[in-house]
Amino acid sequence: MSAPVYEKVALIGLGLIASSMFWAIKRGGLAGEVTGFAKSAESRETARRIGLCDTVCDSVADAVEGADLIVLCVPVGAMDSVAAEIAPALKQGATVTDVGSVKRSVIDAVAPHLPDGVHFVPAHPLAGTEHSGPESGFAELFDNRWCLLVPVEGSDPAAVAKLRLFWEGIGANVDEMAADHHDLVLAVTSHAPHLIAYTMVGVADDLRRVTDSEVIKYSAAGFRDFTRIAASDPTMWRDVFLNNKDATLEILGRFTEELFALQRAIRTGDGEHLHDYFSRTRAIRRGIIEAGQDTAAPNFGREGGSR
Amino acid sequence: MSAPVYEKVALIGLGLIASSMFWAIKRGGLAGEVTGFAKSAESRETARRIGLCDTVCDSVADAVEGADLIVLCVPVGAMDSVAAEIAPALKQGATVTDVGSVKRSVIDAVAPHLPDGVHFVPAHPLAGTEHSGPESGFAELFDNRWCLLVPVEGSDPAAVAKLRLFWEGIGANVDEMAADHHDLVLAVTSHAPHLIAYTMVGVADDLRRVTDSEVIKYSAAGFRDFTRIAASDPTMWRDVFLNNKDATLEILGRFTEELFALQRAIRTGDGEHLHDYFSRTRAIRRGIIEAGQDTAAPNFGREGGSR
Repeated sequence: MSAPVYEKVALIGLGLIASSMFWAIKRGGLAGEVTGFAKSAESRETARRIGLCDTVCDSVADAVEGADLIVLCVPVGAMDSVAAEIAPALKQGATVTDVGSVKRSVIDAVAPHLPDGVHFVPAHPLAGTEHSGPESGFAELFDNRWCLLVPVEGSDPAAVAKLRLFWEGIGANVDEMAADHHDLVLAVTSHAPHLIAYTMVGVADDLRRVTDSEVIKYSAAGFRDFTRIAASDPTMWRDVFLNNKDATLEILGRFTEELFALQRAIRTGDGEHLHDYFSRTRAIRRGIIEAGQDTAAPNFGREGGSR
Repeated sequence: MSAPVYEKVALIGLGLIASSMFWAIKRGGLAGEVTGFAKSAESRETARRIGLCDTVCDSVADAVEGADLIVLCVPVGAMDSVAAEIAPALKQGATVTDVGSVKRSVIDAVAPHLPDGVHFVPAHPLAGTEHSGPESGFAELFDNRWCLLVPVEGSDPAAVAKLRLFWEGIGANVDEMAADHHDLVLAVTSHAPHLIAYTMVGVADDLRRVTDSEVIKYSAAGFRDFTRIAASDPTMWRDVFLNNKDATLEILGRFTEELFALQRAIRTGDGEHLHDYFSRTRAIRRGIIEAGQDTAAPNFGREGGSR
């Protein structure tokens, strides 16, 4: 057990990310006390029942009262109103951070509300699962994943360094990145893939000549991986797309261009083009496994394997 | 150990599917003897080294000699020439089957070569991993997955029933389906998703403003699932697309239409459309888990999870 990095931490919004942070904070002894708040009374009840947070507060102002670190874990579209609500209750010298998947629009939404003497250090841990809600969290979610800190103009270096220490204690590797570049990188590694997966699953659900029951039974041939991504939280993802519009549409534009070229290769029977393209993409997979960002076990290891 | 279903089985092509079949045949005691052949001398050497097949033959004719069941496990584009090559060596009363991901074009390629008195029962086990080659197989690959039998006009009911028994012994659930419907269902559950994953990974690899190293480091946000699919065997997949052209292009057309509608919703800020769409796709995932075709564990269970 190391010394706490912050005396009091407030988690605002008690979904997958906040609940995983809580268990990781406890595992690492990173805070003296953790308070929590969720807008839904049901989520607060669940949190109390499973021991999520030392204290679950019924108002967001109570939760942030006296906190040294406030982590906004609400959907990106709710950041503006939550920031406005907590602002009057913030302690001088406190640090406000967030875990939103988009950074430019979160900065624009949150920064104007924060009083002088409060530090703002936006962040984004690159980890998640298809599950959501206060019961979906687990301490290992961030282990060996990346957390990107996106300091804004005037972010206090000491506050940034402390937040870095905190995320490292949670298990993550930490990098710093500028907001606009973050939003472009995430459009590639996350936002466009999610929209594409949602689209493919929606198409499969909507065909007349292939039944849902057939799609479900025969999904192991590739489709089921898409359904996992397309089972992610709808509110979170709506807000991501509405708030990272330009970068997402840019990447989707490139995607469509490339897809049309491959469709034409299929139509014209250009096997060489297809083979070259399919060979090239294997290298990226190797890179991800070598970087420790995925398992090399077949099918992610979800099925046993022996001779 | 049950009684063998076939006295002698010949596996032609020694990749992921054939090698997994071999270990499952041994596990279930489904054949008296299993011979194997691969076009590449290196694959034959590997097979001998790891004990894959009772006998690895240096000619395909030797492998099928006297066999009661011949399983063609070569890429779809190679079925025609392999069928021509084995035809003169086939025993009267033998059954020829295959494991190709496309059925109409395999039937058109193989059937004309087969002599009278030889049964032809096309099949397709819906299972695989991103790995390929003789060392990638494991006995459990087909457990609780589906194998589709696609009898052709004049397929002998007794030969079909025997092949069903064999695949059930291997661990699969067995269904029968007509060739054209098979090709459409697989375009949805497998072929279109693979092309889309290949495309997205290719786009990520090709951007100027986001480096490969960034894509690799930050892949855990969704992208890495696509890279697994896009690491599949390039030759196999080239042949799939060239041989299931119409159905794949039809589904990709529907996909593009739907993707454009979602892109427009993003551009115009239509959050309701996005939220509705993203909510609908969760039901399919639930269906797949209830049908036992995937795990409910977060991220396919590839990472540990505890509080």
